[in-house]
Order: sequence, then C-alpha cells, then structure tokens
Amino acid sequence: MAELHPVRALLKGAVAPGAQVTVRGWLRSKRDSKAGISFLAVHDGSCFDPIQAVVPNTLANYEDEVLALGTGAAVIVTGELVESRGKGQTVEIQAGAVEVVGPVLDPEHYPVAKKRHSFEYLRTQAHLRPRTNTFGAITRVRHTLANAIHSFFHERGFYWVNTPIITGSDCEGAGELFRVSTLDFANLPRRADGSVDFAEDFFAGEAFLTVSGQLEVESFCLAMSKVYTFGPTFRAENSNTSRHLAEFWMVEPEIAFADLDDNAELAEALLRHVFRRVLEECEDDMAFFQQRIDDTVLARLQAVIDNRFERMDYGEAIRILEGCGENFEFPVRWGLDLASEHERYLCEKHVGRPVVIANYPKGIKAFYMRLNDDGETVAAMDVLAPGIGEIIGGSQREERLEVLEARMDATLKEELWWYRDLRRYGTVPHAGFGLGFERLLNYVTGMENVRDAIPFPRTPGNAHF
Amino acid sequence: MAELHPVRALLKGAVAPGAQVTVRGWLRSKRDSKAGISFLAVHDGSCFDPIQAVVPNTLANYEDEVLALGTGAAVIVTGELVESRGKGQTVEIQAGAVEVVGPVLDPEHYPVAKKRHSFEYLRTQAHLRPRTNTFGAITRVRHTLANAIHSFFHERGFYWVNTPIITGSDCEGAGELFRVSTLDFANLPRRADGSVDFAEDFFAGEAFLTVSGQLEVESFCLAMSKVYTFGPTFRAENSNTSRHLAEFWMVEPEIAFADLDDNAELAEALLRHVFRRVLEECEDDMAFFQQRIDDTVLARLQAVIDNRFERMDYGEAIRILEGCGENFEFPVRWGLDLASEHERYLCEKHVGRPVVIANYPKGIKAFYMRLNDDGETVAAMDVLAPGIGEIIGGSQREERLEVLEARMDATLKEELWWYRDLRRYGTVPHAGFGLGFERLLNYVTGMENVRDAIPFPRTPGNAHF
Repeated sequence: MAELHPVRALLKGAVAPGAQVTVRGWLRSKRDSKAGISFLAVHDGSCFDPIQAVVPNTLANYEDEVLALGTGAAVIVTGELVESRGKGQTVEIQAGAVEVVGPVLDPEHYPVAKKRHSFEYLRTQAHLRPRTNTFGAITRVRHTLANAIHSFFHERGFYWVNTPIITGSDCEGAGELFRVSTLDFANLPRRADGSVDFAEDFFAGEAFLTVSGQLEVESFCLAMSKVYTFGPTFRAENSNTSRHLAEFWMVEPEIAFADLDDNAELAEALLRHVFRRVLEECEDDMAFFQQRIDDTVLARLQAVIDNRFERMDYGEAIRILEGCGENFEFPVRWGLDLASEHERYLCEKHVGRPVVIANYPKGIKAFYMRLNDDGETVAAMDVLAPGIGEIIGGSQREERLEVLEARMDATLKEELWWYRDLRRYGTVPHAGFGLGFERLLNYVTGMENVRDAIPFPRTPGNAHF
Repeated sequence: MAELHPVRALLKGAVAPGAQVTVRGWLRSKRDSKAGISFLAVHDGSCFDPIQAVVPNTLANYEDEVLALGTGAAVIVTGELVESRGKGQTVEIQAGAVEVVGPVLDPEHYPVAKKRHSFEYLRTQAHLRPRTNTFGAITRVRHTLANAIHSFFHERGFYWVNTPIITGSDCEGAGELFRVSTLDFANLPRRADGSVDFAEDFFAGEAFLTVSGQLEVESFCLAMSKVYTFGPTFRAENSNTSRHLAEFWMVEPEIAFADLDDNAELAEALLRHVFRRVLEECEDDMAFFQQRIDDTVLARLQAVIDNRFERMDYGEAIRILEGCGENFEFPVRWGLDLASEHERYLCEKHVGRPVVIANYPKGIKAFYMRLNDDGETVAAMDVLAPGIGEIIGGSQREERLEVLEARMDATLKEELWWYRDLRRYGTVPHAGFGLGFERLLNYVTGMENVRDAIPFPRTPGNAHF
C-alpha cells in the first residue's frame, strides 16, 4: 500500500527511494514530452518546491485526463519514489496512477495561471494568490514567525491575554477610530437636543475598534507578572501608503518589575529568537526571498542575530542628526519627533544596524509613559531597523499615581478610573512595547508593501473578500 | 548574590534549599505572630500557589513597613530558601530583606481584598480579578489551552491564517452583524433617494465585523492543504445568557482532500491533545477547579482522552429522542434542528460522553455544506459534550460548483464570486469546523458563564474597560 506524505517530507528525505507513496496537491506546471511522458509538478503548500511526478502514457487515463491537465488542477498521484534524474531535486515519483480530483474549468481565464504577476494585480486575486510562489512563501513565513513569537513567550513564562477588540474607550486614538454600532442608520435614535442617542446602541454607549491592547493588558501584567497580546488592531487613518493598514496584527508584551532597559532587552531577545527560527525552519522560502525579492534579507536577519542593537538617547540622536550635514526635508530640533528620514539615517547610515532610541521629550509621547527624573523626557523607546524604520515602539509605564494623574485631563481620569486603580493597589514599575506584525514580516521577507503581508488587506476603500 | 526566580520554579523544586533567592510579587495574605514574625504569602502569577516568606522583626523596616503591609501590596523578598515547617508547601523563604515596591493606598477599599467574591461582582472589577485565585487559574489555563491549540496544528503542518476581522460581506450573519463605520453620525451622507451613502464610508461601502473566517480560510486551504484560524469573531445578538458573548474567540481549522470523517477525527484529536496538555501543565490550577468549581472536571477531561467519541447520524438521533420517553419543551421531528435539551439528553443521558452528530437536513444548515447523495441531508457535524452541549460545529464543504451555486441566490453568487472561483479552479473535497474558545475553556474549568472565560467580556450593554 502506498502511504500518503506531504511533499515536504519526501523532498526532505523522510522516505527512502523505492517506497510506494501518494501525494495530493495542485499542479504548478506540466510538460508533455514527445516520447509520451508527462512531467507534473505537484505542490501541496507544505514547502516551497513542488515534487515532480513522471507519468508514462501507459496509464489508462493518460490520453483523456493527464494530457488535458493544466496549471492549478488538483490531483492525487501514487507511485514509486525514485532518485531524480533531473537537476535540482533529489527525488521524484514514477507515477503508477494519477487521479484527477478537480480540473481547472476555464484554463484560459485562470487568474493566476501565468508564472509572473504584479503584486498589485495579485491583490485583486487575494483568494488565489496563496497559490503563487511568493504568497505561499509569505504564508509559511508568517506562520513560522507567529509560532516563534508564541513559543518565545511561552518558554519564558508569559501568558497570552486576549484583550478586547471592541472598546468603549476613545482615549487613545482620537480621530482614528472605527465606530462599532448596531443602530439603524436610516432611523437613528435622537436625544432631545437632536444628538444621536448612543444609549440605544448595542453596548448602551459609544463603541470603537481597539487601537491597542496595552492599557488592558497592563491589568493582567500587574497580576501575572509577564503577559502579551497578539491580535488585530485598527486605525481609521486615511493613509494610502505601503506601510499602513486599517487592520493589522500587533504583539504587545508587558512585564512587571521592569524598566526601559529590561524592555529593550526583551525586544532584542524576541527579534533574535524569531529570526533564528525563520532561518532554521523556512530555509527554502528564505532562499526564494533572497533571490527574487531582496538580496539583503539573509544578511539582515543574521546581523540581528549576531550583534547587539545599538542604544542611543533621543538627545544624542538629535545631536547626531544636527551635525551630520544631510539635507533633511523635515526639521531636526530637540522637542520634535523624528521623521522617517531621520530614523533611517540613524539606523542605516550612522549605525548600520538596528538601534534603540530612548528617552523622548514628554511633549511628543503618550500620557502613560514614565516621566524621567529630568522632568523633560519620558522612558519611551523606539527600535529602528535598516530598510524599514520603526519596527517596535514601547515605554516604561508611569507607575506613580500622582505623576500619572498630573498628565491626564478630567475626562481621561474618569474614563480610565480602572487604569488608575492599578497604581493605587500594589503598583510596580512595568514596561512593554508594541511590534507591528506585518512590518516585521516585511522586514523578514523584503516585501515592500504591508498589503502583501496580511491575507486580506483592509485599506481606505477596500474591504473586499 | 541572591538569584531571581519565579515562585513556580521554587515550589517545583528547581532550586535546592540553602540557596539565596529573590522573588517579586504581590501579597495574597499576611499573618503577624505575637512572637514578632510575619508570614507573607507572595504570589507572582507563575503558578496557583504563593510562596511563604517568613519575616523576622529584626529587619530594619519591620515595624514601619512590613507590619503595615496588606493584601495586594507589591514586594521584593530576598532570603534563604529553606524546607518548610508548615504543611502544604515544601519550601519557604527565610527573609533577609523585604522591599516594599507598591503599597495598597486605601486598604479598606481595595476591591478584591476579601477572599471570596461573587463572579458577578468580579466582572465589575475585571481589571483586578486576575489577582484572585479563580481568575489567575483561568488565565493560566486559557493560555495553556491556546498554546496547546497552536502546537497541535503546528506539529501537524497546519498554517495559522489571520482572516479579516472587518468584512464587506454580510452573507453569513444576517441581522447579527456589527457595522463598522467612520461616517459622522450627526451628518450622514445621503444619496438622492435619502438613503445613507456608504460609498462615502471608509471602505467605500458597507462594512461589518466578521462572524467567521471560514470562507476566507477556505481559499488558503485550497492552496496550502492544512490551515486554521484562531481569532476574534462577533455576534450582535441581544442574548443575555451564560453562553453568549458579542465578542469571542474561535478556532477554525480547514483541511483539503478531506471528508466529514476526517473532520470528526481531527476534532477528536484536537480536543484530546489540548486536554492532555492542560492536565499535564496546569495540575495545580485543575486541582483548584476540581475542588472549588466542579468536582467532575478531571474525570470529564480524562474520559475524552481515554474514549473515542460516539458517532451518530442526525436521523438516528431523532429516532432515539422520539423513543426515549422524555418530556421535551421543544418538538422533535426529522427536519427540525436539535434544541439544547435534546443535545444534552443525547450526550449526557443516552451516550454518557461526547458524541458527533452527523448529516443534518439541508434545510436547517448553511449553503456551503456538502449535499449528501440522498439529496436531503448535508455533511454537517456537531460535537456535543456533556455539561455544555455543542462545543464544535463543522461540515464538509460543497466542492462541486454547480451544486454549490444551486444553493446560492443571485446576491450571494455575486458577492461570493471569489468563493465560487475556488470550485472552478482545482476544487477538492475539503472540510473544517469551528470551536468556540470560551466554551472550550468553560468545559475544561467547569466555570458556568462565558463572561468569566474571557479577559474583558462584551455583552449587550457592556463594553466597559
């Protein structure tokens, strides 16, 4: 009896030649020789390469079915695993039977039949693009990265906490929030003054999609010590750039009894761990990205694994930028935020590898970041990486109740009564950061547009599929 | 130098008595003896139990600080690890130093100071409830279950696919959808006929929160062979029950070249794997649930591990229910869906363990479920478990284009053009199911209300925190 195997297992040498094997998958290509032999490249998603099946014209369904097969058709191939006579592959299947499971009904119009399509075009075929080399590889690397993130935290005693997606709070994303509602738009309930009566809405008040799980996960951090979120977050930003999605996945660890240095160490350890896992487990996919997408990706990941990140204070970064003689579009001055061009200069030209910028002016950072002793800066950090800019943003959180409250207005204080409670009852220094998962994936693969790093991208004007 | 350790490592015997150790955490309780010794129970979230620190009154800050400490205070304790003289614990810390990191500012009003609170009350303190025994244990078990789910799929070659949260499609959840919008409710854009012009909305059309990632993940299944989703899903159902959340997490695997039997096997293997992991890794938490919440949980999980699920056709289930002599509230008749009371009778009284009911009448099931050869039933399955009812619902998907289209109306066909494409190009038999993660967690812990199985529950009238 032939045993069923993923293509990956066969190509990796898990089965000795001579065995009867079965594979199931889809044709990546087919070539029919004049000698009456067809060569099927069968792909099942388990690895980058398809396996070659050599089909003789002696099969009963050769003329009617095998010859009619085209790219994309689903087949089950059974035969003897033999050492390959062709180049590139170690083994192939000498087919004894080819079962056609699902043909391609309309081959001329199969949207991904061609070998090469633009990424723009493939976004219009998001349901079929995982069948291409590039998006199959992205799917595997995305999975491996995600799995490595979960493993990293699990092995270190962190708990995954699923913070809420729908939130009644609008304190963090003013102007960039999606509203969530079940009100009948054709017939909105009104209060006496004519304003919309959200008391009638599903949650008996206004509700939005979250921009971050940080505030909520802090409450678990201050009970469980080490926690992280990994889930979807949202920005209703009308940005049509290669770096913005309306819906994206974010990883947000939070650690108790920790300061900004601990936070930077954690960020560095996390990136090192996941890059190592990807290089180990996605060798074939990474070779493809190196060869076809960006010939610096392997060196880039290896450099993160081999070298410590540079550390630099914001103040020092400003001095470097002021003195570097570059013509920047945006002004450089203490008190202003760094623009993308500044960040890229620092990590790409000045340092040449990832750099952690720490201690930003309090005026440009969020209320919950811890005020430093200078009274002017907060314990915030950004991790900047060559080729992509900011990949991580984090901070030590303000754990002192009175200092925190001094940075909150009355509305915020009322809304975040529970967040203040965390400082009232057993407060401890704690810190955390946010890692944009699609930007991380682009950093790893060299892909340029975050729309290609998520299965079904949501952007202004587009919630298709 | 004292080395820092999680409480779990010390209680598990990872460090030999005699070592200098440091632990950091929060006081679960404190007892001051007349002999001038205080006993601190220090908890850090790493396991169910706190570790006891024995503090002599010879410490410099004993009078001023240690005696003033109350439940919930954050401390760092350093001292010698010694064998415990008390019962229950193997080791304790003979404290040489106690650093008070964060006191409880207002001890009389600390909302979770008492040992016992009702679960209803604790829902109003969702930011503090992870500090209680029950919700700390739930957090750890939830994490372990989630991690076990990811491991199960990863080890078997599945890829985690993050299907979209925001969708332009309303085909699956008619009447139970949350709308997502950035329109100004005070000033809605109108078309000439007075209707709301959603072309002006963020996504240039109507948008909703997803009720399932199934349709989208099918497109990845038919490229990658084995995939799963694990993410938040939404129901705008006005149900105030212990089994319903407006926002909950769902696991949805999808396998290619697979039928309903493969699907049931997968469901069974998944549950068996995750229950085994929980029993192995959360022994202390599970002992607590067994003792305090539901004294059947251990036996229940072991029974799933040890026994195959019963398999039963819907038709057979109807015959059993018709002949059983029970007085049901809802009618039993071929063609009607099973009510909760019927499901519970079947798995609790008739079978006495989980049962897979298969092949339901097509009239009560979704359009995408595969029509059986009888023309009357579809290849749907529900997994019913004693004490909870339906825990998994799934089906083999209709892979035949013409049969699928016959069950879709014109609107659905137009909206799901891409879903039909999957049957046009290399279609294969495939199947999958959905597992409600909070219901699974309740099944494992014996907790009765799904609001206690998710960090911040969202229900009608409530999106607090």
